[in-house]
Amino acid sequence: MSDRKFSVIGTDQVRKEAPDKARGEAIYADDIRLPRMLHGRIKRSDYAHARIISIDTSAAEALPGVKAVVVGSEAPQKYGIVPQAPTETAMAIDKVRYHGEPVAAVAATDPDIAEKALDLIEVEYEPLPVYVNTHDAIAEGAVALHEDNKYGNIAYQARQEFGEVDKAFEESHLVIEKTYKTSYVNHVFMEPHSAVARFDDNGDLRMWSSTQVPHYLHTMLSKVMDMPMAKIHVTVPNVGGGFGGKGEASNNELIAALLSRKARRPVKVIYSRREVFLQHRGRHPIEMKVKMGVDKEGYITAIDYDGLMDGGAYGAWGIIILFYTAAMLHLPYKVKNVRFFGRRIYTNKPTCGPMRGLGGVQPRFALESMMDELAIKLGMSPYELKLKNAIDKKHVTVSGVHVRHSEYKKCLEEVVSESGYLDKHGKLPFGKGVGLAGGYYISGTAYTLYMSYKPHSTALIRLDSESGVTLQCGATDIGQGSNMVLAMMCAEKLGLPYESIHVISGDTKNAPFDLGSFASRVTVAAGSAVCEAADKLIEQILPIAGVALGCRADQLAVGNGEIYSIYEKEIRMPFWDAVEKYIAAHGPLSATGSYTPPRRTGDFKGGNVGHSPTYGFTAHVAEVDVDTETGEVKVVNYNEAGDCGQPINPLSVEGQVEGSIVMAMGQALYEEIKMTPDGRLMNPNLHDYKVPTMRDIPNIKTLAVESYDEDSPFGAKEAGEGPIQPTIPAILNAIYDAIGVRFTEMPVTPEKVLAALAAKGQE
Amino acid sequence: MSDRKFSVIGTDQVRKEAPDKARGEAIYADDIRLPRMLHGRIKRSDYAHARIISIDTSAAEALPGVKAVVVGSEAPQKYGIVPQAPTETAMAIDKVRYHGEPVAAVAATDPDIAEKALDLIEVEYEPLPVYVNTHDAIAEGAVALHEDNKYGNIAYQARQEFGEVDKAFEESHLVIEKTYKTSYVNHVFMEPHSAVARFDDNGDLRMWSSTQVPHYLHTMLSKVMDMPMAKIHVTVPNVGGGFGGKGEASNNELIAALLSRKARRPVKVIYSRREVFLQHRGRHPIEMKVKMGVDKEGYITAIDYDGLMDGGAYGAWGIIILFYTAAMLHLPYKVKNVRFFGRRIYTNKPTCGPMRGLGGVQPRFALESMMDELAIKLGMSPYELKLKNAIDKKHVTVSGVHVRHSEYKKCLEEVVSESGYLDKHGKLPFGKGVGLAGGYYISGTAYTLYMSYKPHSTALIRLDSESGVTLQCGATDIGQGSNMVLAMMCAEKLGLPYESIHVISGDTKNAPFDLGSFASRVTVAAGSAVCEAADKLIEQILPIAGVALGCRADQLAVGNGEIYSIYEKEIRMPFWDAVEKYIAAHGPLSATGSYTPPRRTGDFKGGNVGHSPTYGFTAHVAEVDVDTETGEVKVVNYNEAGDCGQPINPLSVEGQVEGSIVMAMGQALYEEIKMTPDGRLMNPNLHDYKVPTMRDIPNIKTLAVESYDEDSPFGAKEAGEGPIQPTIPAILNAIYDAIGVRFTEMPVTPEKVLAALAAKGQE
Repeated sequence: MSDRKFSVIGTDQVRKEAPDKARGEAIYADDIRLPRMLHGRIKRSDYAHARIISIDTSAAEALPGVKAVVVGSEAPQKYGIVPQAPTETAMAIDKVRYHGEPVAAVAATDPDIAEKALDLIEVEYEPLPVYVNTHDAIAEGAVALHEDNKYGNIAYQARQEFGEVDKAFEESHLVIEKTYKTSYVNHVFMEPHSAVARFDDNGDLRMWSSTQVPHYLHTMLSKVMDMPMAKIHVTVPNVGGGFGGKGEASNNELIAALLSRKARRPVKVIYSRREVFLQHRGRHPIEMKVKMGVDKEGYITAIDYDGLMDGGAYGAWGIIILFYTAAMLHLPYKVKNVRFFGRRIYTNKPTCGPMRGLGGVQPRFALESMMDELAIKLGMSPYELKLKNAIDKKHVTVSGVHVRHSEYKKCLEEVVSESGYLDKHGKLPFGKGVGLAGGYYISGTAYTLYMSYKPHSTALIRLDSESGVTLQCGATDIGQGSNMVLAMMCAEKLGLPYESIHVISGDTKNAPFDLGSFASRVTVAAGSAVCEAADKLIEQILPIAGVALGCRADQLAVGNGEIYSIYEKEIRMPFWDAVEKYIAAHGPLSATGSYTPPRRTGDFKGGNVGHSPTYGFTAHVAEVDVDTETGEVKVVNYNEAGDCGQPINPLSVEGQVEGSIVMAMGQALYEEIKMTPDGRLMNPNLHDYKVPTMRDIPNIKTLAVESYDEDSPFGAKEAGEGPIQPTIPAILNAIYDAIGVRFTEMPVTPEKVLAALAAKGQE
Repeated sequence: MSDRKFSVIGTDQVRKEAPDKARGEAIYADDIRLPRMLHGRIKRSDYAHARIISIDTSAAEALPGVKAVVVGSEAPQKYGIVPQAPTETAMAIDKVRYHGEPVAAVAATDPDIAEKALDLIEVEYEPLPVYVNTHDAIAEGAVALHEDNKYGNIAYQARQEFGEVDKAFEESHLVIEKTYKTSYVNHVFMEPHSAVARFDDNGDLRMWSSTQVPHYLHTMLSKVMDMPMAKIHVTVPNVGGGFGGKGEASNNELIAALLSRKARRPVKVIYSRREVFLQHRGRHPIEMKVKMGVDKEGYITAIDYDGLMDGGAYGAWGIIILFYTAAMLHLPYKVKNVRFFGRRIYTNKPTCGPMRGLGGVQPRFALESMMDELAIKLGMSPYELKLKNAIDKKHVTVSGVHVRHSEYKKCLEEVVSESGYLDKHGKLPFGKGVGLAGGYYISGTAYTLYMSYKPHSTALIRLDSESGVTLQCGATDIGQGSNMVLAMMCAEKLGLPYESIHVISGDTKNAPFDLGSFASRVTVAAGSAVCEAADKLIEQILPIAGVALGCRADQLAVGNGEIYSIYEKEIRMPFWDAVEKYIAAHGPLSATGSYTPPRRTGDFKGGNVGHSPTYGFTAHVAEVDVDTETGEVKVVNYNEAGDCGQPINPLSVEGQVEGSIVMAMGQALYEEIKMTPDGRLMNPNLHDYKVPTMRDIPNIKTLAVESYDEDSPFGAKEAGEGPIQPTIPAILNAIYDAIGVRFTEMPVTPEKVLAALAAKGQE
């Protein structure tokens, strides 16, 4: 790897837009103010499960300042991120399925008038039984939330089996079986969903929205609004975080569009924090019955998983997450016998969906906890057990997942060495402990959410000797810094500084196609498209420089703003002079690139959903201090070692890893959405729903292990979702090491710790 | 021509953005509101000519809410549209040269605070003699406005002579010589100059401005701000008219940038109507001594022109207009002997510049009046004389101007026939009359305002099967409808409807290079680039369709949203299906095009400035009613016949022609900026400066003569500047026909008419 020399890649770069954000000058969707713009507000259901008997909007319509009122029946088209299985409408039509579901909406000249109009809308309901847990929802005789669903309140279920699971358990040295429960948590991104819609008199719809997926929003707007896609233009301004929660159309977007079409004026619909919790799409609580066996030496013999996912009211990303969970069950370990059974259940709650690390966080919590327990039972260091089972540099899973590049073992080795895990584990005083866990994640998927053979990402680069480099790429910067990553790749290829690349992204008309920002796909997919486009540009420029320099084009290279001979130092010219010569002779200089991931066929039907071009790996050691008086768990030190291939911007990778750790720490220790039995949210605000603050953040040390994936653009892999996987089990394993209690439910609150310590005392 | 069949070209299309403008939803620069944006205001000189002794801004800086104050010395770089001859600075430094010239500027959190701060700025002046007319300015001993100018207050002068002028006059049958004076008029576009500047922490400048020329503004910002061009990004929102007045950087743009850099916040600087009159760049008043001879049959023998242009305080477009005037002197007639002498003079007035039809309006006023007079003296119909002298379909002038396509004769024939001119001229009762005049204009120039070999216009078209057609073209829509024209051309080429083309224009980073909107260049130049890009796209798509259809690509054509065999009707497929197939196999589908006009070398030095790829022609008949009681001239009927090649959008051509006629009518009859002897504007507002209103507009009939320029995109030529040339002489010729008085000065106000009638009565 030492022969690779980069100028831009691998350097710490501050994002160009960072100062704007710090100064408050960056434009988010809510900063968009259009002439004649109205403010939309949403009338929400007072019942968690009920039939709608009637909606009377006449008094609201009569209120001065109200310009449009819409109800569900005006947009009957069902939509969903998976087009084969749409379950939602823009607003409820005959039935509400969660408390706070949209039933009508108002656009008015002033937000206060819109709020007042909501009070004037009369909705008559006929209440139905409310199910706030999965067992009630699938009990005999339960009323189906979706009457057209064949399996009552089981939205989907899937079974997969590889190897001979039962036989392997029989032959195991040690088997444990436990039930784990994960909590109902929200992403808590800073910026609530915000959308502005504007119809013009040509019937064209322009939408600005805080979405991660302008393309999918585009398709869903087309469906719900019953309009051709070419008449819709989606633009994504700065986004204040998504983490999956802005990974499909949200009601505010569809409602803004409907109100705008009816009022014939621009309409803005932004959510309050409570509405963000109602839109939700947070992590699925899963009740996981897991069985794992090992042989005498600690090699895993088999895994049997039975997961009951609480999906909330609608389908959303549910089926995808179910399949991701299946595919991600056993990696990053070599396991030959695996059984998966998963069900996703409809309940009368805000809908769960994709959240950072989706598919992996819950099973990793269970499996990394179990491996810790098994190792200790075998009298072995959990590190030794994990290292033994860890996959090698190349691996094909029993389910047919191809991992072509892994440094997971190196991650384990380095995090253990850096953290002093071996000196501490089992050796710290009571109340103090360390825990180890590992994880991994995909770098995008091989398949789109619907069948299509078009490229997943595309890019267009244009060079102008005066205006510089314009990189147009549909990839969407949601605060994760993808514009920076793509600009750095473009700069490296062209031998120019990062700052000089002007990026146009996240726009369905002003930038070329991209699937969006999810599944950690952008660096590899959009990065590949950018690299291809840049390579094509170089191919066009070098011959021009060759003519100017009297030199063969294939002996020239770009770098430091110049084109130079790789053999003779004095043969060189400014890069932009060559561009100018090109343009004078040939016209505009531009090139496009695209990326379609390789589609490896697995050995089993339908399992392809888990395939990714490449995978990132990570290993964590958490060190905790448990206050046995108060029950408070304090994470004091935290070490991570990650294999994200070649870090494009190490500073940014560090930020992604730290963010992942803090986010998962919140879920391990503090966060949980609470509900009343009749389905009302008890804590949909940041006062009552506790997220970690600056004071809670441990001393985090991250370390990028030496890694380079030859098949990826600049050797890079994902870095923003893998690192959320091991945090919860690392902390819970550390708590066990500290106080000898194994928690199988999140969050581990002081109350639970005190109760467990009390119970332990009575043993 | 009958074998040409178009689907989109030649159809009446309503511009896509028209309803937005009517509803008030279109975004102009003043509609841009950025977070933390400040409001900039300009401190202006109280003297028309004075030395600045000192400027004290301390009290202004101390005012709460004031965030930045700038003075001229902070931006000493001179700029100008002609980079070889810059004369202006962003604000005056040592000297002010007109009353109201910017001397300092303030950015504050509120416009009122900014205004108050202006009052607190103390400027000490040492007054100098004020010259508000050209003769005073060039009199012996006059103080030079620009001390570094070699020729006192003569900014530039030029002499050209072709043929044997004196000899031709000697041999003439009839010679007349007269002095004509044109008035000091402003464009009076609806939208005052508006600019918003924002510096980010990378030192990059973003500017939104109501400019016609983002490229030239870009170059001038780079110079004044002393920044590389690549760090500047100029965007043009909707523009409420320019007519030349927004054809170079204006003080508000430069001041907004300076204030933003200093305050580190976005700054908006918009002009009041008074400030628009101070920025000015309106039409040069010219005192023209003109001599013209004819032979017995009415053929023009020679023209001798001596013009004294009142340029106001700065250089601006002056030298260009001087040369345009020289080049445009004799066309659209065949004249073998021509002498031109022109001087542009500095005076203590707001600077004159490019205004619709620049270079042609003043000489046409003189020459078309003289030809009318000569014809009548010869006892010949002015129509006969003009037709005799009119150029043929192809013509090279004695000065080397190549006209490769003209239907001027047809224009004369058709307007005379349509208007019934021959039945009316000389035959209407006293007080009623008709007047005929002709004109022409360039369709862009062959040369840029500075030496460059890069294309003048470029375009990039991208096709996506979902999002449709995106056309990126730097050409700037200033309300003239260029986006529509380019979209129509693109649509015609691709066989798609006009509405489906999404245009990104007027932006130095988001669209490829274009020189800007001036000199009626866009339809031909940018249109050619668009057509080339579209042709290249078709070349890429047809082979794909050929594969799908089992047919040779060269037997396929596009139309009606399909690709079809030109031989077999049943062989066809949807256009977008072929695009989709292309993208799946090859990645993004895009193509670029560009245009560099042919550069014909004239026979004389420096005359190239007048060369254009092609020329539009037009002939007018005005019919007036002169109220001999009140002196009021009412234009009652108005006929125009124009050769603009193939009209792209006839409705739009009609609008351009009507707009030109009404604008010129204002100058003929009402408009004039008045000044006090010490250089203050007396009527810089739309109450005292009279422009025509709806009630003044005559019954206008326009007619596009059959025409097609084989060398132009879709046969099109200019239509927006030629039609302003003949209106003034047509009206003045009609007044002569009505009351027997020849006016040689504009505007022909009721007072002047009454005075002339009284003088006539005394004859």
